[in-house]
Amino acid sequence: MNLDVQRKVLRTICPDAKGLISKITNICYKHQLNIVQNSEFVDHHTSQFFMRTELEGRFNDETLMADLNDALPEHSVCELHSTGKQKIVILVTKEAHCLGDLLMKSAYGGLDVEIAAVIGNHDTLKTLVERFDIPFHLVSHDDLTRDEHDRQMIAQINHYQPDFVVLAKYMRILTPNFVQHYPNQVINIHHSFLPAFIGAKPYHQAYTRGVKIIGATAHFVNDNLDEGPIIMQDVIHVDHTYSAEDMMRAGRDVEKNVLSGALFEVLSQRVFVYGNRTVIL
Amino acid sequence: MNLDVQRKVLRTICPDAKGLISKITNICYKHQLNIVQNSEFVDHHTSQFFMRTELEGRFNDETLMADLNDALPEHSVCELHSTGKQKIVILVTKEAHCLGDLLMKSAYGGLDVEIAAVIGNHDTLKTLVERFDIPFHLVSHDDLTRDEHDRQMIAQINHYQPDFVVLAKYMRILTPNFVQHYPNQVINIHHSFLPAFIGAKPYHQAYTRGVKIIGATAHFVNDNLDEGPIIMQDVIHVDHTYSAEDMMRAGRDVEKNVLSGALFEVLSQRVFVYGNRTVIL
Amino acid sequence: MNLDVQRKVLRTICPDAKGLISKITNICYKHQLNIVQNSEFVDHHTSQFFMRTELEGRFNDETLMADLNDALPEHSVCELHSTGKQKIVILVTKEAHCLGDLLMKSAYGGLDVEIAAVIGNHDTLKTLVERFDIPFHLVSHDDLTRDEHDRQMIAQINHYQPDFVVLAKYMRILTPNFVQHYPNQVINIHHSFLPAFIGAKPYHQAYTRGVKIIGATAHFVNDNLDEGPIIMQDVIHVDHTYSAEDMMRAGRDVEKNVLSGALFEVLSQRVFVYGNRTVIL
Amino acid sequence: MNLDVQRKVLRTICPDAKGLISKITNICYKHQLNIVQNSEFVDHHTSQFFMRTELEGRFNDETLMADLNDALPEHSVCELHSTGKQKIVILVTKEAHCLGDLLMKSAYGGLDVEIAAVIGNHDTLKTLVERFDIPFHLVSHDDLTRDEHDRQMIAQINHYQPDFVVLAKYMRILTPNFVQHYPNQVINIHHSFLPAFIGAKPYHQAYTRGVKIIGATAHFVNDNLDEGPIIMQDVIHVDHTYSAEDMMRAGRDVEKNVLSGALFEVLSQRVFVYGNRTVIL
Repeated sequence: MNLDVQRKVLRTICPDAKGLISKITNICYKHQLNIVQNSEFVDHHTSQFFMRTELEGRFNDETLMADLNDALPEHSVCELHSTGKQKIVILVTKEAHCLGDLLMKSAYGGLDVEIAAVIGNHDTLKTLVERFDIPFHLVSHDDLTRDEHDRQMIAQINHYQPDFVVLAKYMRILTPNFVQHYPNQVINIHHSFLPAFIGAKPYHQAYTRGVKIIGATAHFVNDNLDEGPIIMQDVIHVDHTYSAEDMMRAGRDVEKNVLSGALFEVLSQRVFVYGNRTVIL
Repeated sequence: MNLDVQRKVLRTICPDAKGLISKITNICYKHQLNIVQNSEFVDHHTSQFFMRTELEGRFNDETLMADLNDALPEHSVCELHSTGKQKIVILVTKEAHCLGDLLMKSAYGGLDVEIAAVIGNHDTLKTLVERFDIPFHLVSHDDLTRDEHDRQMIAQINHYQPDFVVLAKYMRILTPNFVQHYPNQVINIHHSFLPAFIGAKPYHQAYTRGVKIIGATAHFVNDNLDEGPIIMQDVIHVDHTYSAEDMMRAGRDVEKNVLSGALFEVLSQRVFVYGNRTVIL
Repeated sequence: MNLDVQRKVLRTICPDAKGLISKITNICYKHQLNIVQNSEFVDHHTSQFFMRTELEGRFNDETLMADLNDALPEHSVCELHSTGKQKIVILVTKEAHCLGDLLMKSAYGGLDVEIAAVIGNHDTLKTLVERFDIPFHLVSHDDLTRDEHDRQMIAQINHYQPDFVVLAKYMRILTPNFVQHYPNQVINIHHSFLPAFIGAKPYHQAYTRGVKIIGATAHFVNDNLDEGPIIMQDVIHVDHTYSAEDMMRAGRDVEKNVLSGALFEVLSQRVFVYGNRTVIL
Repeated sequence: MNLDVQRKVLRTICPDAKGLISKITNICYKHQLNIVQNSEFVDHHTSQFFMRTELEGRFNDETLMADLNDALPEHSVCELHSTGKQKIVILVTKEAHCLGDLLMKSAYGGLDVEIAAVIGNHDTLKTLVERFDIPFHLVSHDDLTRDEHDRQMIAQINHYQPDFVVLAKYMRILTPNFVQHYPNQVINIHHSFLPAFIGAKPYHQAYTRGVKIIGATAHFVNDNLDEGPIIMQDVIHVDHTYSAEDMMRAGRDVEKNVLSGALFEVLSQRVFVYGNRTVIL
């Protein structure tokens, strides 16, 4: 294989119109790029067109993007992503299970990602992180306003220039300022099947309601608590023998699987956000 | 097998105390009843004891119950149920899938139940019901107050003296008067994973929220809409290609399975209600 | 909407090559056909390209297909399907649950299909079928060789010219002659999670093996028993309290859901067979 | 709470007979032991009775067991287990995911277990194990017969006197000699939904067969490869886009969850083995 041959992902969002697939694939063909995998979706409610095209060949990014922008309708968003390893920063509080799964998968396979750093508002997980030779930073919220704490977090995060920020059971509500810094880049795991049991202590809420299923939801974070675009959800069955604590223990496996699974899709450039929804191609 | 040998289910709920299992099983042993299956549960939060005992032998109901009531603490509830075929009345509106599943299972195996009658507030499903040689009654709500309509429903139901009333997509809210007539005897299927999407049009709510899982919940009906004790829940995965209508179509299979499944447990005398929860033994 | 506007599904299978999507969508665009939904897949092991294109517009079938055949490589298979109601014939023996689900969904929504007839080698299900005003034919295998019986079945089936033949718990092994009559047109439900428990009495095999999950498999029928291309599979959890009979009862819901689900995909022209596999677009 | 008050688990297996529950619970009551949780099961095929009783109080083990042995029929097995932390030794080869999950859960919650040591036939996972401050031993099989290697493994394991030996993707077939050393004490994770795809490379077998579901099975190891008593199984759905490698990646999460889940049940003294089956109480 020639050294110049690369693999990239082209992501297109635009208003639906006749001939879009034809136009885009024509341009790829003209550029002698091979389509390894292609998926598209039209949301007929909003007349929005989504396409993910995995391409292989020798890329001239500039002319390719120019050709695409010429051919596509107004208000189109067209992005070309490299497929190399991406970088994340993980925020944590005290619970280890989601973090541990990400550390394991990053180090031993399952997630093609570089964990640049882990930042905690407590230092409980410092040892675990350092066992994997990854920097841990404590940014305590003691004696800080929420705004000031988030500003310190942002400063620490930006030091690493991550592609995504992953909240692995980070048990603090983020300020709008924080959220706006990382649009569609912050992924959270909520320990319930949203929109059931929004807010704190969802397992206790679930126990009190007497549900027979508990779940977890991975979503992008926006300004409304637990209401961002959902990426992945899963559940397990429980019964009357489960206390709230039992639910919590059993739920941890769901939480970590859902968070890792969602991150896998995001890193594969498969997740498109529009409004409060995701399209996963 | 001697004709006098019968199988019955003994259900006990009482405050927890030392020696309860021993006391109850001693009495069964003394009565020369064989324990075919036994399950018990202690809710340590409320110190409540639950036991379901499937017994085989020659029963003297009166002396058995007297012995048990002597031995058990105050505030105990002890019931002895025959295991023969029980009777239900089904309420419907226009949707056929849950009703159809119950008709099929009652006629061809899967549910050991007699469907005494089906009552609809529309006559859409009359033909389907009559195909299975079961009486259908139309109790239209046209020109009736909700109270008056429910009174007519109660009159029609009581004509059959059912053990349980099953709401197989009966799309009306019941009056407190109706609910009080059948305490822990009315089973409803709600077309969402409660407590998410309470109320009307849950699939449209689910679509709007962009969830990745939809579900169904079978529960006993109490005075608070969609808040009665949950018996069974299940879910299926959906993705961005599902419209609200697609969710509705896919959800129907979950709804009917969950309703049939919950009814199966209830008819097996396995479901105990306490507060807003169920114990299933 | 103009009366001439139609919706059709174009299905393409061909050796993979650069520019295929572009070529096919160009032709659709040239014919002023709107792509409502498009999916494609390349099997990189066998270099096979699959594409399903749902089109809307005024069709000139002849010129469209001619243009496509000109543009596509040798050994391409290109089919244009109408999206109207398709016809099936169902074969049964004695079990009602899969048949009942198909009858219900055909009559009351869930499957856009015409059940032309049901044919049984026993008459157990005659009444059920006739309740839904559908012809039932008994083709008894008494005193017939397997070949002769299958010939009579074929004759009876061909009378209706169905698009697909559905084996809804038809408990006989088909002759190669039968199978060759309906290539990739016969859909079977096997009551196990294939390839576990091939052959007869899978629930008894499952019980004996002490499994904790049971399942069902819908597949196209080919010459090797239970080894045709799999369309859909699902499972449920069981435990030590399940006898083989309990597994059978619980498994029925999985069987019927999987068979209906597989048929839904097949009728939507989404299922492509190649070798012993299916691609579902 | 008085220091002498302890919690223990009483496990009984015996031929079924009238009055067993009554006899056992009477003796517990007589010993002033409180039953915290009780479960029992009768296998009516083999007339075998199983009971798990979680007891709290001041134990006189000797007189309690003597009373029980007096009361129970011949061929009864009655065991009293402490509920303290148990000890395991883990065997590995090169794959990290199951091991990592056990290390995380042992260190950070989820499994109340002491990992005494990890033994590998390769040293690939040495660093990971030592990160968690647990001894790792390499017992290479180079230049050794299978018998000799297993003898060295046994020697190394016995040094730690573990309650259970966990095969966390240990990719070697054990000799009968090894298996006999640890009857019902060796727990394996097999990376398929047994009995499908016994033996090596199950994901490649699954890919070739074109299945739509893949799974994992945790089982006790006996003399027949992959045929020991099954403790837990689970599956995930896959589709035509999954290569064998994709199945392998996705399957890892199922494998680790099923192994951890099975171990949790075993450590809770809930799993009873009889013949080739398990009862989980």
